[in-house]
Amino acid sequence: MGRARTADVGELVAQARAGAPRAVARLISLVENAAPQLREVMAALAPHTGHAYVVGITGAPGVGKSTSTSALVTAYRRAGRRVGVLAVDPSSPFSGGALLGDRIRMSEHACDPGVYIRSMATRGHLGGLAWAAPQAVRVLDAAGCDVVLVETVGVGQSEVEIAAQADTTAVLVAPGMGDGVQAAKAGILEVGDVFVVNKADRDGADATVRELNHMLGLGEARAPGDWRPTIVRTVAARGEGLDDVVEALEGHRAWLAAHGRLAERRTRRAAREVEAIAVTALRARIADLRGDRRLAALATRIAAGTLDPYAAADELVAGLTGGA
Amino acid sequence: MGRARTADVGELVAQARAGAPRAVARLISLVENAAPQLREVMAALAPHTGHAYVVGITGAPGVGKSTSTSALVTAYRRAGRRVGVLAVDPSSPFSGGALLGDRIRMSEHACDPGVYIRSMATRGHLGGLAWAAPQAVRVLDAAGCDVVLVETVGVGQSEVEIAAQADTTAVLVAPGMGDGVQAAKAGILEVGDVFVVNKADRDGADATVRELNHMLGLGEARAPGDWRPTIVRTVAARGEGLDDVVEALEGHRAWLAAHGRLAERRTRRAAREVEAIAVTALRARIADLRGDRRLAALATRIAAGTLDPYAAADELVAGLTGGA
Repeated sequence: MGRARTADVGELVAQARAGAPRAVARLISLVENAAPQLREVMAALAPHTGHAYVVGITGAPGVGKSTSTSALVTAYRRAGRRVGVLAVDPSSPFSGGALLGDRIRMSEHACDPGVYIRSMATRGHLGGLAWAAPQAVRVLDAAGCDVVLVETVGVGQSEVEIAAQADTTAVLVAPGMGDGVQAAKAGILEVGDVFVVNKADRDGADATVRELNHMLGLGEARAPGDWRPTIVRTVAARGEGLDDVVEALEGHRAWLAAHGRLAERRTRRAAREVEAIAVTALRARIADLRGDRRLAALATRIAAGTLDPYAAADELVAGLTGGA
Repeated sequence: MGRARTADVGELVAQARAGAPRAVARLISLVENAAPQLREVMAALAPHTGHAYVVGITGAPGVGKSTSTSALVTAYRRAGRRVGVLAVDPSSPFSGGALLGDRIRMSEHACDPGVYIRSMATRGHLGGLAWAAPQAVRVLDAAGCDVVLVETVGVGQSEVEIAAQADTTAVLVAPGMGDGVQAAKAGILEVGDVFVVNKADRDGADATVRELNHMLGLGEARAPGDWRPTIVRTVAARGEGLDDVVEALEGHRAWLAAHGRLAERRTRRAAREVEAIAVTALRARIADLRGDRRLAALATRIAAGTLDPYAAADELVAGLTGGA
């Protein structure tokens, strides 16, 4: 990387830290595109991270995640916070970008300089969500956001894990979708610190709250060091209940801090981030072999049934690490 | 691994090849649990694979994937084929298993010895779907299935990719779900060889077919070597149109064979499988460091902002590969 480009990165980081939306956008695009400059960007951002409170928001399709996120932004803005939103779409691994782009998402906040909203698509690049999302959060954190909301669809293991690696994770459900079972099926019950029953004006909201209480074992005794998940009701489309959500989130944050868990969560998140970067680096070395005759030869033998995939993988790994 | 266990694996593989459902179940459980014996299992299975025609089935939640898969099994059984079904649930990475287990899925086929149905959950283990699904397909293939249907939800990048790595990929849509846009958003349009408009008795089915025609560019000229995706209408809940689906799938298979593409797809699938195993092996080495003081120390420094994640990842990778 030449000297000119290094200067560009420094400039870009400085602008992003000053809150310039275009600089923030460019840095997140570098993440999306897995640009080689990222190493430098992250080194420059590192001293300026750790301020933002990171909230994961997840739930099945149709529970009103986007509406809730938008309403939550409004609530946080009323409280004077700078808010970043990272909406991770389950977008095409093949086509050019998120179909529902930033411009048409949450348009009510479009002109608010205290809000930065970004849809991120991670199709295509090797590391996927586990690699990209934490780095985008880092950008928003360093850009001075007080709160970063990370919204993912609660279907698919990487998607759920991203929302789970927050300081606080909010799980959205809605009445009448066989919601409890759906949520459990998607593995999102276990990751929730705060549960939001959205569309709470609908029939079945009480039943949903009861079901959640039951599935979460909220009636049972709990060890003193264990967080007892909170359940909040909202009608996000009418902006109702969002201040309660903020209160519940802040309640969990205060609990984390009081029990020394915030640092613990952040250290664990950092460890997962390092792992994702390391795995991606190794995976890239393996993917570099895609055009390679050796991999093609191994694959041909596997397809013919004359070699098993483990023996083939041994050969690949041995080639990378200089001896099995 | 001791001699006794080696003998067990040989016996298990022999029973599975003879079509014993319990042996097949145990082998797939070994995959699910990432058991150490898998290396041996896959070596024993390798010479007996390559017979099955692998069909990926994907689509957004609610389009009727399970119903369609079940109806497709019926259609294939009418044609005298042995069928394996691998339903990859977006299940909990945390709890003990798929909530909708094998027993309550597709109960109409429960007593048919020519059908093997398996829901597979991959939560928890390191490689995820990319690692587990192809190995489970190998088990069903070696067990003598003529057709293996791999059903995944069309949300989440790993889920879509699994369905895409088939001989033929069927994409399900249903009218009136903003289906085209949803499908495009999930990146599933690009992977379809055959499109199934399910619930075709509903209003809007014609519009959905038109929209698909448009989005797939079916009216446009196509290079002679390019497959032109087929669109089929079904009402899976009433068993209507499934023979047409079988015909469309077989049409694509014949086209692949005639154009030398079947071997090409299988070789590519084998290459991705080897990559997934190799990446998982390397990732496991990294995850082995989770209890390690070095990773904890790096993560603590990152959380404190005194180290960036790339520099930390360099240290990890250097430790694994004996020099960056």
